[in-house]
Amino acid sequence: MNTGFIGLGAMGLSMARNLKKAGLLTGVWNRSTDKASSLSEETGCVVAIDPATLAASVDVLVLCVSADADVLAMVDAILPGAHPGLTVVDCSTVSAATAREAATRLAAHGTRFLDAPVSGGVEGARDGTLAIMCGGTEEAFEAARPVLAAMGRTVTHMGPTGYGQSTKATNQILCAGVIQAVSEAMAFAKAEGLPLDKVIDTLGKGAGSSWYFVNRAPFMARENFPAGFRVRLHDKDLGICHDMAARHGVTLPVVEMTRMHYQTLMQTGHGDEDISTIFRLKDALFSVGAKTS
Amino acid sequence: MNTGFIGLGAMGLSMARNLKKAGLLTGVWNRSTDKASSLSEETGCVVAIDPATLAASVDVLVLCVSADADVLAMVDAILPGAHPGLTVVDCSTVSAATAREAATRLAAHGTRFLDAPVSGGVEGARDGTLAIMCGGTEEAFEAARPVLAAMGRTVTHMGPTGYGQSTKATNQILCAGVIQAVSEAMAFAKAEGLPLDKVIDTLGKGAGSSWYFVNRAPFMARENFPAGFRVRLHDKDLGICHDMAARHGVTLPVVEMTRMHYQTLMQTGHGDEDISTIFRLKDALFSVGAKTS
Repeated sequence: MNTGFIGLGAMGLSMARNLKKAGLLTGVWNRSTDKASSLSEETGCVVAIDPATLAASVDVLVLCVSADADVLAMVDAILPGAHPGLTVVDCSTVSAATAREAATRLAAHGTRFLDAPVSGGVEGARDGTLAIMCGGTEEAFEAARPVLAAMGRTVTHMGPTGYGQSTKATNQILCAGVIQAVSEAMAFAKAEGLPLDKVIDTLGKGAGSSWYFVNRAPFMARENFPAGFRVRLHDKDLGICHDMAARHGVTLPVVEMTRMHYQTLMQTGHGDEDISTIFRLKDALFSVGAKTS
Repeated sequence: MNTGFIGLGAMGLSMARNLKKAGLLTGVWNRSTDKASSLSEETGCVVAIDPATLAASVDVLVLCVSADADVLAMVDAILPGAHPGLTVVDCSTVSAATAREAATRLAAHGTRFLDAPVSGGVEGARDGTLAIMCGGTEEAFEAARPVLAAMGRTVTHMGPTGYGQSTKATNQILCAGVIQAVSEAMAFAKAEGLPLDKVIDTLGKGAGSSWYFVNRAPFMARENFPAGFRVRLHDKDLGICHDMAARHGVTLPVVEMTRMHYQTLMQTGHGDEDISTIFRLKDALFSVGAKTS
């Protein structure tokens, strides 16, 4: 199975390497050529002259780009090389509407499309342990399965086109609310003078616990927020959640509150820290309160 | 070790029974006498004529009442029987300030005080598996240890007087934020048409997960919210969090948003459902949106 890869960013580069390890990667294309050339030297894969040429030469073509407009632009660039034997797998995080639009454009050329956003971060991409949430036909999912298995550990077919993106958006809403919970609780605990490590240990076993509490409350206890899930990236994803909710005529309170907090964090130089840095704002409430109460 | 118990509500009755099983319970007092008489017939413990008489006859006296004013009123009622051999263990959920006031009043009679709020609900009280978060001197904690061990599975000494309550309040803030996260995400997932059980299974293993997502998102998927942690009780606890934050000059966004939601739920007859019923309000956003968008 010949597999191509487009989009060699922090995630994409590692995912392409895992495809190579599985003996699947045959060609790549990237907007900045140096990254593609460098991977070519490392792995022996071909650097295609353009996306359409790459598409014409492979069975599966993985995309891993940044935003909704990038996905649609890349699909258009692929179209001249699209063929009925091709399945395009888009691992970018974009809206479900963009996934449906991409699928429609490719279907006109008999090409299958699978939306397949991932979670697990750069570590998951490197270790091949990503969770991959897929939307598309059963046929597209089966065609892409060996490629998905080479990049991720948990691969789930959620339903028709767009359902992968809807599932990813659901996850990003969960993360927003949970980080609000953990940061607000930890700032309160600090203000109360509690021994924070003991609080994490005790409450981490109870009904108030969460992955973020167990794994990121310690960042808050140390007031040090090394990049795990960057504010900038979660903010981009919450923008997608905002747009998707707006299509239902809805504004989601937790999503909007978190986006406001992220604006402040990005404007004050914390956009590349882990999202647990939202603790800074909750903690600041108590600093201001202490001066005025 | 003679142990007395005051406050035979849904939690207290089960906790008193576990003290009896451990051979510690000698006497009880309750505002409504019938509950005390009934427990006396069941266990053979003595029903004291008043709180002070009970206090005079025991080494450890456990309180499990409703609100801050109840705790202080009960401490005042105990004072005539308070003695240097007595340790009062308050398992009620109240503010840290109330715990400190209770400790001060009892210390004047040489009596030790431990604030020891619990989590784990009626099931934990029944099964003796409560988590108990304690604040007080090392001496008070050690004096109460056999009693705590008979009622709970995880017993932690968090620090000086009030630290048990501060830890409990931290937990209630966590629960508020997490239920906001889970309900908002699940309402979005439903609106997107996702298969909800598959979403819970998939995202429950990831970084957006939490105890509430794994254990209460299924309530939302079925739109049925049997009483686990009642809205009415969490609302009372969040009122305590509000007051404690106000002492720092702070208003906490997640706490206040959740209290507003709970007001609506209680006013519409959902106050005795599990807090996952907040899903109703998030889901209603999408119903309204669908009509207007």
